[in-house]
Amino acid sequence: MQRYVGIDIGGTNIKFGIFLNDGRLEKKWSISTDFSDEGKKMWDDIYNEIKKNVSIDDLCGIGMGLPGPVLADGFVEVCVNLDLHNFNPVQIMQAYFPGVRIRAANDANVAALGEQWKGSGEGYTSLGLVTLGTGVGGAVIVDGDIVYGASGLSGEIGHIQLNSEETRTCTCGGKGCVDQIASATGIVRYTKEVLARSQQDSALRDKEQITCKDILDAGKEGDIIADQCVRHCMKYLAKALAAVTYIIDPEVLIVGGGVSNAGDYLIKIIKEYYDSFITLSQKKTPILRASLGNDSGIYGAAKLVI
Amino acid sequence: MQRYVGIDIGGTNIKFGIFLNDGRLEKKWSISTDFSDEGKKMWDDIYNEIKKNVSIDDLCGIGMGLPGPVLADGFVEVCVNLDLHNFNPVQIMQAYFPGVRIRAANDANVAALGEQWKGSGEGYTSLGLVTLGTGVGGAVIVDGDIVYGASGLSGEIGHIQLNSEETRTCTCGGKGCVDQIASATGIVRYTKEVLARSQQDSALRDKEQITCKDILDAGKEGDIIADQCVRHCMKYLAKALAAVTYIIDPEVLIVGGGVSNAGDYLIKIIKEYYDSFITLSQKKTPILRASLGNDSGIYGAAKLVI
Repeated sequence: MQRYVGIDIGGTNIKFGIFLNDGRLEKKWSISTDFSDEGKKMWDDIYNEIKKNVSIDDLCGIGMGLPGPVLADGFVEVCVNLDLHNFNPVQIMQAYFPGVRIRAANDANVAALGEQWKGSGEGYTSLGLVTLGTGVGGAVIVDGDIVYGASGLSGEIGHIQLNSEETRTCTCGGKGCVDQIASATGIVRYTKEVLARSQQDSALRDKEQITCKDILDAGKEGDIIADQCVRHCMKYLAKALAAVTYIIDPEVLIVGGGVSNAGDYLIKIIKEYYDSFITLSQKKTPILRASLGNDSGIYGAAKLVI
Repeated sequence: MQRYVGIDIGGTNIKFGIFLNDGRLEKKWSISTDFSDEGKKMWDDIYNEIKKNVSIDDLCGIGMGLPGPVLADGFVEVCVNLDLHNFNPVQIMQAYFPGVRIRAANDANVAALGEQWKGSGEGYTSLGLVTLGTGVGGAVIVDGDIVYGASGLSGEIGHIQLNSEETRTCTCGGKGCVDQIASATGIVRYTKEVLARSQQDSALRDKEQITCKDILDAGKEGDIIADQCVRHCMKYLAKALAAVTYIIDPEVLIVGGGVSNAGDYLIKIIKEYYDSFITLSQKKTPILRASLGNDSGIYGAAKLVI
């Protein structure tokens, strides 16, 4: 029976999924990422995992999501998190699996494809996705297809510079990027700053180490400082989503990544600001939470070859 | 011989072009817009102009650009400038010309299509266009096709809210829209404010009525206030163009509209800011001036049916 492997390569873990061609997920598992020896170890690990789990006669395709810009031919200039440079994952895997259909794409693009195929985006032909995690990632789909862009910059919604109050420089070299304020890192940093300059009571003051989840939980439970900080940070995300609408006007906007686990509380705040920024139309785009969670990457990677 | 009519309907003039199917413009002319009698006069005028200029046996298609959001089936909820509501220009024209292929689209979308077909965008399959005139309009093309969007909001780049210093409300109801600062209207308003609060010498102080062209001309000739004002306003336009790149990453960005007649002086300023905002890549998208000028609308309208 035909099998397709979807692989989500991250800086910490590599996730695997084995799919049937109707999109049923037969098995999933993950291993930790070992990118030593200029990646050699990692490719060997991926090869071994596939070989152990799928009969080579059944294997019809391998799709991969990678944390960096992937050009149309598969070439990757850099994956910062993997410390890998100038390589072509498609060619590398092809050497291990001659004759098998292999494709690779950026991890955010792949996640969007997964959500569109089997997640919150099912039934929509255009969508904008943002992922809120350590950073802010994103991807857009127009007319059913991922927009890959001319230089791998499409969907880099996190680096739109919207916050003119920002004083620090973003890792990208910019200033005021959405990434700096709406990522988990950004939410924690901003909240700590507010706590430091305010006298107001907050449950967060009892924590030794404040995590983004602490802030979101406290906000949900009515902690005023936490709630205000979440609102402030999500205002910028909503502005970025409004920019997506004023550029491609997708049928739906989807919010994923670890921060989105805060659920309705977070989505409602984003939606409220978003609606206020869409002044040109009474019809407001729905904003949904990504529904595949950590599996969106393996789904989308498999979809690349199904 | 086959003939196609491209019509660009504006609040002041209606422009007509007769095209051969290889895109050659055979004839062009314009009439003033008379939208009295709930548009009846205008449709009659359009009918008469076409009848006078094209033999009905040769007429193979009529394309129209309209100043408002046009849905996929041609329906238009509102054209503010024409004071027309809830009408379908395709159905209306079809009654005048049964059997002829008729299509309609938003004027900015049509202009982008024109530029891609026979203007600065020729040879590119993806592009972002902004038009700087009384307002800031725009359109995006991905994979060779106009992105129409789910609710007619795609390409409304002028209403991305980027200027957090803005105190006035935009006509759309938003605050800090690119339209408020980077349109001809916005440039004039901002410059007048700067002139009022500064003591610095400027050639503009001798003018009774300052137009946008005056400011651009003065800037080009080295007038410090004029140049600073143009730079300030174009910084926001560049930020909006950077957002276009970080969302769809087109192969080229095109600037059109009356303000773009300032030419290289303006494009250079926009490009300088734009490059500074694209921090994620060394490869910077080219920014070109629209080359069809006022004819982009008739070209694009004709392309709708060719």
